[in-house]
Amino acid sequence: MISVAHALQAVLNTTQDFGVEQIPFIKSIGRILKETIYADRDFPPFNRVSMDGISINYTAFKNGQRSFKIEGVQAAGSAQLALQDSKNCLEVMTGSVLPDNTNTVIRYEDISLKNGIAIIQIDTVHKGQNIHEKGKDRKVGDLLITQNTKIAAAEIGVLATVGKSFVNVAKQPKIMIVSTGDELVGVEEIPLDYQIRRSNVFTLVSLLERLEISSDTAHITDDKPILKSKIKTYLQEYDVLLFSGAVSKGKFDFLPEVFEELSVKKLFHKAAQRPGKPFWFGSTTSFVVSPQNGDQNEKENKNKNTIVFGFPGNPISTFVNCLAYFYPWYYKSVGLEVEQETAILSSEVTFKPNLTYFLQVKLSVRFGHLVATPVLGNGSGDLASMIHADAFIQLPQGQTVFEKGTVFPVIRYR
Amino acid sequence: MISVAHALQAVLNTTQDFGVEQIPFIKSIGRILKETIYADRDFPPFNRVSMDGISINYTAFKNGQRSFKIEGVQAAGSAQLALQDSKNCLEVMTGSVLPDNTNTVIRYEDISLKNGIAIIQIDTVHKGQNIHEKGKDRKVGDLLITQNTKIAAAEIGVLATVGKSFVNVAKQPKIMIVSTGDELVGVEEIPLDYQIRRSNVFTLVSLLERLEISSDTAHITDDKPILKSKIKTYLQEYDVLLFSGAVSKGKFDFLPEVFEELSVKKLFHKAAQRPGKPFWFGSTTSFVVSPQNGDQNEKENKNKNTIVFGFPGNPISTFVNCLAYFYPWYYKSVGLEVEQETAILSSEVTFKPNLTYFLQVKLSVRFGHLVATPVLGNGSGDLASMIHADAFIQLPQGQTVFEKGTVFPVIRYR
Repeated sequence: MISVAHALQAVLNTTQDFGVEQIPFIKSIGRILKETIYADRDFPPFNRVSMDGISINYTAFKNGQRSFKIEGVQAAGSAQLALQDSKNCLEVMTGSVLPDNTNTVIRYEDISLKNGIAIIQIDTVHKGQNIHEKGKDRKVGDLLITQNTKIAAAEIGVLATVGKSFVNVAKQPKIMIVSTGDELVGVEEIPLDYQIRRSNVFTLVSLLERLEISSDTAHITDDKPILKSKIKTYLQEYDVLLFSGAVSKGKFDFLPEVFEELSVKKLFHKAAQRPGKPFWFGSTTSFVVSPQNGDQNEKENKNKNTIVFGFPGNPISTFVNCLAYFYPWYYKSVGLEVEQETAILSSEVTFKPNLTYFLQVKLSVRFGHLVATPVLGNGSGDLASMIHADAFIQLPQGQTVFEKGTVFPVIRYR
Repeated sequence: MISVAHALQAVLNTTQDFGVEQIPFIKSIGRILKETIYADRDFPPFNRVSMDGISINYTAFKNGQRSFKIEGVQAAGSAQLALQDSKNCLEVMTGSVLPDNTNTVIRYEDISLKNGIAIIQIDTVHKGQNIHEKGKDRKVGDLLITQNTKIAAAEIGVLATVGKSFVNVAKQPKIMIVSTGDELVGVEEIPLDYQIRRSNVFTLVSLLERLEISSDTAHITDDKPILKSKIKTYLQEYDVLLFSGAVSKGKFDFLPEVFEELSVKKLFHKAAQRPGKPFWFGSTTSFVVSPQNGDQNEKENKNKNTIVFGFPGNPISTFVNCLAYFYPWYYKSVGLEVEQETAILSSEVTFKPNLTYFLQVKLSVRFGHLVATPVLGNGSGDLASMIHADAFIQLPQGQTVFEKGTVFPVIRYR
């Protein structure tokens, strides 16, 4: 049994680059950008009028002139006009180009208009006011979005602005989620007295959808030859297999032997944690410290490798292990840096086993403080208790009493 | 011009119930549950073995017996067996029914097995241990998920467990997003010197996708008859219209007149805020205080009503107004209660105008404190500055200096 920190490190040592694909920018929300986005022109790309009103040559105002004959209208989306007589003005619209021979915009609110004459009603006008100067925000070639950014609404707006109708993003790993256990029946079935419905695969599907990963699912009966034959196929077709169940000490917990027979190398089995202890983790390729260069990601062979997460079958065990191990594995694989969140315990927690304790908590923000209130369930089988929580707080191994007001890492699932 | 608080109240007075639809549970992530979910049976539904090992009658152990002949194996997913001789035992698997005539489970780790005999290696055994008792987590009929819950991975697992293969969720409003402005060209086009690409509609599409709302988009040129004819159709076909641009004082800002001519009642125009001040808001049905019952949601007629959000055209104005007004409108319409988040300002901010100030901030959690660091941009046109932030902090009107360390509401967009 290894510590949670060592287990996580072993998992992170197997991260992989799944390559890049080009997709329409509007489909890229939640995906990880795999190129650098630069300004294709200055922003704004021209001296841009930022208020509806009139545009004048400031010198005229400075010389005491207050009435300006209107020569015409500079609309947004029209080619630049030029003021013909520096004692006149042009009406200008927000978003239009500043007309040539003008340098100052006065809002409609500050003028009166009569018979084609605009009369300025205010005494203070600054040269250059109400103009958003060309290149003020960004210069052509400026870096706008760095590679490995998770694309959200702000990035979508910037991608549109610079004309990236297609964008390079990290390819998602191809994932199969497998449940085992002969006590499980389908969601639409009525279980017999000794049966329950499948739920873990759907929880995992949902947790993967949060990462914009679509996945396949399967259920295999507790029959060793069938398990072996199906898993052999999955190992060839998928980048990652997520299992739920059949990794403990039961007579029908065939997975560890099947993995061994199919040359899936065990990297660890059991992590010192509750829930989720009987977690089996391995890979079809060994990730070892290479004597040549010390690179822990060195691959022993260049064949396709598949990562196998064998989560324990209890609902909360599967849930927390997906968050605590698969998520960081995915983030590192696609190059996303995720800041660790911490929260303040709202009440004392006592936990005696010498294990890391992942405890369900309800998070709330009070006066800028992130407070974690423990949600007490009945152990790793009590999925319904997760409804009232929205994160796990990670209480470290080797400590028994966790005082109210102390701070620990949290992993959100909402 | 009305205050942000009054503007928000006017928006919230127009919320509507869009009804309920039934969809496959696995498609319901992010949707709002519109039924109450109860336990269809006890959880666990039987006395469930929670460790792989043997099951015995505790009396035998209490009487000093340590060697137990194995009568057979109780597998998960098999009908309940019964122990024939109370001096024997049955092997039992995690997830199986507790065999009849037994009441105590001892883990494989605590026994040795030889020639069909299990010998207990420990001195302390508690009656009933390693059994997850029927109904211990939840009783049949217990409330599991309340109506109006936003469905996430935990809810998906519970829905599967109780056999809800189809689930009732709030119908989404049908939404059209319209951009205006003749300076705008498509994302795939090369703009002329005085043109820029459309971006606000795509930002709005992305912000709506966060709410699992799909939307349609259109662009209309600054031509009043065309605007009027198209908007007339949209008012008949959609529940909500989101506009970006053409609501200010410009000569081609036709929307307010067009809305009036199409009998869209203005509920307010301009909110005391920066950015996003020239916000126009209205509805095809008047929402007035009814003299009969004081219900502010009383409708003057029963015809279809359409809500019109006329956001100002600057990118950050559109962005913040969607978050500050449309989001709360949607949450209230579908019955979702959202806790207001607050954060601690990391540096002093000075803002002189007598307006509510929505300032971009980068949020980070330090020792359980949610800290908001201002991201300085160049005003409401500088969309690229949003890349470095992930929320707006809402600094109230009527105050000029906002001290470091003070707490204000924040609206996240990531």
